[in-house]
Amino acid sequence: MKAFFKVKTIDQALEYRKHFAPLRTEDISLGESMGSVLATDIRSDIDLPDFARSIMDGFAVRGASTFGASEGNPAYLNLKGTVAMGESSNLAVGPGEAVRISTGGMLPTGADSVVMVEHTEAIDDTTIEVYRSVAPGQNMVEVGEDLNKGEIALTGGSRIRPQEAGMLAALGIQTVTVFKKPTIGIISTGDEIVPVNETPGPGQIRDINTYTLLGLVRQMGATALPYGIVHDDYKVLLAKCTQALTECDMILVSGGSSVGARDFTIDVISAMQDSEILFHGISISPGKPTILARVQNKAFWGLPGHVVSAMVVFSRIVKPFIEQVSGLNDDGGKKSRLTARLSRNLASAQGRVDYVRVRLVHKAGAIWAEPILGKSGLINTMVKADGLIEIGMNTEGLDQGTEVAVIPI
Amino acid sequence: MKAFFKVKTIDQALEYRKHFAPLRTEDISLGESMGSVLATDIRSDIDLPDFARSIMDGFAVRGASTFGASEGNPAYLNLKGTVAMGESSNLAVGPGEAVRISTGGMLPTGADSVVMVEHTEAIDDTTIEVYRSVAPGQNMVEVGEDLNKGEIALTGGSRIRPQEAGMLAALGIQTVTVFKKPTIGIISTGDEIVPVNETPGPGQIRDINTYTLLGLVRQMGATALPYGIVHDDYKVLLAKCTQALTECDMILVSGGSSVGARDFTIDVISAMQDSEILFHGISISPGKPTILARVQNKAFWGLPGHVVSAMVVFSRIVKPFIEQVSGLNDDGGKKSRLTARLSRNLASAQGRVDYVRVRLVHKAGAIWAEPILGKSGLINTMVKADGLIEIGMNTEGLDQGTEVAVIPI
Repeated sequence: MKAFFKVKTIDQALEYRKHFAPLRTEDISLGESMGSVLATDIRSDIDLPDFARSIMDGFAVRGASTFGASEGNPAYLNLKGTVAMGESSNLAVGPGEAVRISTGGMLPTGADSVVMVEHTEAIDDTTIEVYRSVAPGQNMVEVGEDLNKGEIALTGGSRIRPQEAGMLAALGIQTVTVFKKPTIGIISTGDEIVPVNETPGPGQIRDINTYTLLGLVRQMGATALPYGIVHDDYKVLLAKCTQALTECDMILVSGGSSVGARDFTIDVISAMQDSEILFHGISISPGKPTILARVQNKAFWGLPGHVVSAMVVFSRIVKPFIEQVSGLNDDGGKKSRLTARLSRNLASAQGRVDYVRVRLVHKAGAIWAEPILGKSGLINTMVKADGLIEIGMNTEGLDQGTEVAVIPI
Repeated sequence: MKAFFKVKTIDQALEYRKHFAPLRTEDISLGESMGSVLATDIRSDIDLPDFARSIMDGFAVRGASTFGASEGNPAYLNLKGTVAMGESSNLAVGPGEAVRISTGGMLPTGADSVVMVEHTEAIDDTTIEVYRSVAPGQNMVEVGEDLNKGEIALTGGSRIRPQEAGMLAALGIQTVTVFKKPTIGIISTGDEIVPVNETPGPGQIRDINTYTLLGLVRQMGATALPYGIVHDDYKVLLAKCTQALTECDMILVSGGSSVGARDFTIDVISAMQDSEILFHGISISPGKPTILARVQNKAFWGLPGHVVSAMVVFSRIVKPFIEQVSGLNDDGGKKSRLTARLSRNLASAQGRVDYVRVRLVHKAGAIWAEPILGKSGLINTMVKADGLIEIGMNTEGLDQGTEVAVIPI
């Protein structure tokens, strides 16, 4: 009997990310860049804004002209005209003077603030009353207040969210250098697996892992390339893996990663050129029988066949590797965790990290995590689940009411 | 001067979702269904699994044959053969008998449990020693344990996550009836706005909102259709909005929603056939000058021109409307909130809900929300932000150390 070897903790497993470099960079259009990872820092070549802008509809003034103004004692200002939007004005604002301006308008020479229209009254065509004082700088944005010329606007390794796309637009960057999004090959193995379009015979089940893994890969913004089902045949699996390796940046083989006689993944990896098994087995549950190999500088995974195990391993282990080859800066993966209170006591084995599926329930003003128990082959337990909670390696269990971090899944 | 009218609270604003029905349904392939919303409940027409499956590599037995077995006192079982994967076996397991089985194999007649291979030793070709007892049902999945025939597997109105795709695969559903994903038209207005590919002249800035809104719409899995920039011209804006209305399911016009003389959005809405302004103004900051109208049964939004305001309004108000027309069941939007501790005191005005941009920082074993202060026209404040925190309508402020819910943005 083959045994598990090189069993690693989660942290040890994640250390192997260093073995894999981000993919090459490519230039894409700003409109298509959402979700991509910036390959380089972006430095601003302009002040943002590069003119003093009003942020209110009202009147550009010298603040000093309004000092002491109130409902009972308004300031009277001489209205010199209107700033046209999107143009510089040749009007100048002196003491006791005002120029009409709209939100986004460029402050005329001499003005240092804007009085909101709500705090004024027109007396006639050339005079306004002002009921409130404004301080210099009020209701306007200074030159460079958003970003100064020469400052780093965006850092390489950041994912482009809507606001990063907005910043690129503000800087006039129409073509963005990003890391190529990885293409992840997905292979299901097992003689008992049939395609979705077939009716399973006795002892057969449909291929679930192709679809869960495809979804998980796409959810990350990577490209999924499914290769279908390979039956328990060493030669066919080797051929399919070799093909996938030429077409993809990372390979996920589900099933065939245990220590049974039918588990060919290890043999296939060993047969491929320039391959090295990095670990076989992770001290987590579910998901222990996981293989990571480096084959021709690409990460090659043997994932457990049980659907829950494969999803847990993907979420906790594979995903950080995909982020790594995507060029994403590591944020420790902790920002997106939410907290809830555990609805019941949970026992756990020491010496491994347990992941328990939970449903989130709002009750009595709090969010409760209700464990969903069930074997790791049951897809329905994942459908019912909103997330996973982690029970640490040296923990015998968690008490009801404990605050737990919930990993959305 | 035009005044704000029909100012609503957030809850009142969200009530108007009822005015808008989910879009029509369409049939798409399972492989393309990730992120779509199921239009109907899905009932299982099979037991899942429809045969008793082993979840371990080992030996199918009658549990009773192993009772009392231990290292010192093993049970000796008569090995009758091997179950082939993906087939029913014609072997039967009687008392004192065992059949070799792999993970996922179909239990033979008479077997009620599986002994793990790790707890056995082969004596010869026909005899094994068993060192641990197994209870009936152990190391196997019963017929229907995942899902019983006739049960509701998935509920209409759910978004298809990887696990829902897996469940559809398990049930052999290759074509899925989902709600059509909405197409959202995006229009930027303002004489001072120039396209990203132009160098702004004095008083001009590049179009940011098209890209932030495009990103926010795509992030939700909806389709964004940008119409570019319309200058402050009533006729052109009316024509562009009329066109967008025929091509889109919802319209977002940014800029032109305030009460200034140049703000044509209200006039354009009023000029369109079968239109009704539902509200103008929401008691939130930033984002007050927001318009919602119903035009020919479609939601038509006038969003503030300031980039942060438009993003906050999208995230808190527009998004639930897009979810509504997407057919998504309302979960109260609270499941995805995470918590942090506020790093400093924050003042807030009463009578409105304030949204404060925050950066999340890990410090001293806790996650802290550090407010990012800055005017609502500054895109850089959003680039630095990880989320928003909400300060309620009747709250004067929050103290340092308060636990706050963080809305990722």
